[in-house]
Amino acid sequence: MQIAGKQYRTIWIEGSEVSIIDQRQLPFELVIEKIRTADQMATAIREMHVRGAPLIGVAAAAGAYLAACEIAACYSVVDRKSLEEFNLILKKIQATRPTAVNLIWALEQQRKLAKPGLSWNNLCGTLLHNVKELAEQDVKTSESIGQHGIVLIEQIAAQKRNTPVQILTHCNAGWLCSIDYGTATAPIYAAHRAGIPLHVWVDETRPRLQGARLTAFELAEEGIPHTLITDNTGGHLMQHGEVDLCIVGTDRTTRTGDVANKIGTYLKALAAHDNRVPFYVAAPSSSIDWSLRDGVQEILIEERHPNEVLYVEGLVDGVISEVRIAPENSPAKNFGFDVTPSRLITGIITERGVCKACEEELCALFPDQQ
Amino acid sequence: MQIAGKQYRTIWIEGSEVSIIDQRQLPFELVIEKIRTADQMATAIREMHVRGAPLIGVAAAAGAYLAACEIAACYSVVDRKSLEEFNLILKKIQATRPTAVNLIWALEQQRKLAKPGLSWNNLCGTLLHNVKELAEQDVKTSESIGQHGIVLIEQIAAQKRNTPVQILTHCNAGWLCSIDYGTATAPIYAAHRAGIPLHVWVDETRPRLQGARLTAFELAEEGIPHTLITDNTGGHLMQHGEVDLCIVGTDRTTRTGDVANKIGTYLKALAAHDNRVPFYVAAPSSSIDWSLRDGVQEILIEERHPNEVLYVEGLVDGVISEVRIAPENSPAKNFGFDVTPSRLITGIITERGVCKACEEELCALFPDQQ
Repeated sequence: MQIAGKQYRTIWIEGSEVSIIDQRQLPFELVIEKIRTADQMATAIREMHVRGAPLIGVAAAAGAYLAACEIAACYSVVDRKSLEEFNLILKKIQATRPTAVNLIWALEQQRKLAKPGLSWNNLCGTLLHNVKELAEQDVKTSESIGQHGIVLIEQIAAQKRNTPVQILTHCNAGWLCSIDYGTATAPIYAAHRAGIPLHVWVDETRPRLQGARLTAFELAEEGIPHTLITDNTGGHLMQHGEVDLCIVGTDRTTRTGDVANKIGTYLKALAAHDNRVPFYVAAPSSSIDWSLRDGVQEILIEERHPNEVLYVEGLVDGVISEVRIAPENSPAKNFGFDVTPSRLITGIITERGVCKACEEELCALFPDQQ
Repeated sequence: MQIAGKQYRTIWIEGSEVSIIDQRQLPFELVIEKIRTADQMATAIREMHVRGAPLIGVAAAAGAYLAACEIAACYSVVDRKSLEEFNLILKKIQATRPTAVNLIWALEQQRKLAKPGLSWNNLCGTLLHNVKELAEQDVKTSESIGQHGIVLIEQIAAQKRNTPVQILTHCNAGWLCSIDYGTATAPIYAAHRAGIPLHVWVDETRPRLQGARLTAFELAEEGIPHTLITDNTGGHLMQHGEVDLCIVGTDRTTRTGDVANKIGTYLKALAAHDNRVPFYVAAPSSSIDWSLRDGVQEILIEERHPNEVLYVEGLVDGVISEVRIAPENSPAKNFGFDVTPSRLITGIITERGVCKACEEELCALFPDQQ
């Protein structure tokens, strides 16, 4: 996607140099970080230079590739000793975000390729190829979600006769959390490219403000009309017919169609339901946990540091700074996600098509994955 | 109420000097501002050193008193010329917050007292007496709301067997927006004083953060257990049984029980309804607009400056500063209020008792006011 008129992905590789966008500096500055060692990649993941499940997976796989390059400088053949070194580095990368399922999975894919007796030089090539495959796979998933989701937008556009389709989204399920296109944003980008007039309401998404900082930035750079609002605003807009469609992402989806997503998603789903606004979740099948049936009861919600609530980060005099917004002696709680029950979800947009948020339809789309 | 262990009201008068708390500095610094002229009071109201409907009313009345004191220094008797001067100053005060109903009403009360032929010195005494009356009246209203509302908290406490009653509130309908006790907080303060264990979830209330900056401050200074949360969090808490009761304030109430309150109130009411959590509105009868029947259709929602969304104010290095949270080229919209339909409201706590949010019961409580 575009930044300042130039095409980017969130991660790319030239030789033994991996480039990423340091997302901590967005939207204030575009900083491209060159990563040359597995250690640097571990830091980039841990300190959230890159974030978002699909992107973390590819970044971790790239970290494994860099690890192999480092080892190839000292060892020619994969033996017990060099393999131990390799696995140690992979464990280090894994420890950076221990609950990220994509990270564990991607590292495991790389680890399995390192078979004793292979040449480390050849293995580097194989691991690099695999990173690129993973990235392409993710792009294809996003593109498919875009192609299935655009139909929903087209249907609304057909009824609106050239006035913009009003879409509300929460948090950032955009291209910056994946490799390209994103999940919730993929139908939006596809519709925009198809010339459908649209406008996006962007929830700022406290506490970390991914809506204000990342989604608004993505949309601005692509030239898509959008307006930033506080998380309190969506209900009022829906009451007054200002929202035609909600599309959000998901961190974890149950087989029954409950959706754990950024805290506050549930409140928007309630408002959509109360005002008969369609509420869709863009969910790559990798987000579906087929072992779960009841999202509210079974999904443990991560609690993050209270300082994310007590302080707000932004730009002051050209420098990224934090301001404290609360009294010294007031405590805070910071739940990262909430669960939207399937009964409030109009449909789920997957890479294989759109279905109702229910076990029957999800299982019918993915008979091979349960 | 207490600040640093000392009793305060939001406004008080000694001789011809009016003291207010400059609320723009809260919770970071307690600044008592001495106001000696009507002009200074106009500035204090316009620039929101004081805010909140009941407080603005009393502050405006105090401004009229100061105006009379100034005129009494030049004129002995109320004549055409001095009365013109007086009315001119009152108009200036009225222009500071033109939509504030309490302000207009309080100034009108003072204006009517300035009858030709009276001595300006005597009139000063009458106006001062009236300011104090208005303040006392407001305190009594808050106390009554507290006494009616405490019953709801007692009922929940009786079922909870000494574990704290969990109350969620949005924005600041606390003593800082009135003279003492507040509206939504009055039952909370009453219950705390009666020894009922309780804990308050405080919505930070973007964009202006009145929850984080004022409600959290009030509760902290009174020693009431509380926790600051983002506006996104309440739904998750209610899903998990962490909220026993919601109490919010109101800016305008229809005769049918619809409530216009700070933006985001509607989303919390939806979550309360979905999880069968009682949702109460503390509404002094002065907030009821008996001419309105349909809140969503009839109440025009104020749009405020988008910079309140694009920037966040807080403390950095001991100085109150603003940080920008969004890209340079992203626009924002800033609706100040939303409307919660009566069907989502369990009851309304007025100074005459608690009733259902419906025309029949509101009219039965206030047969004299419609």
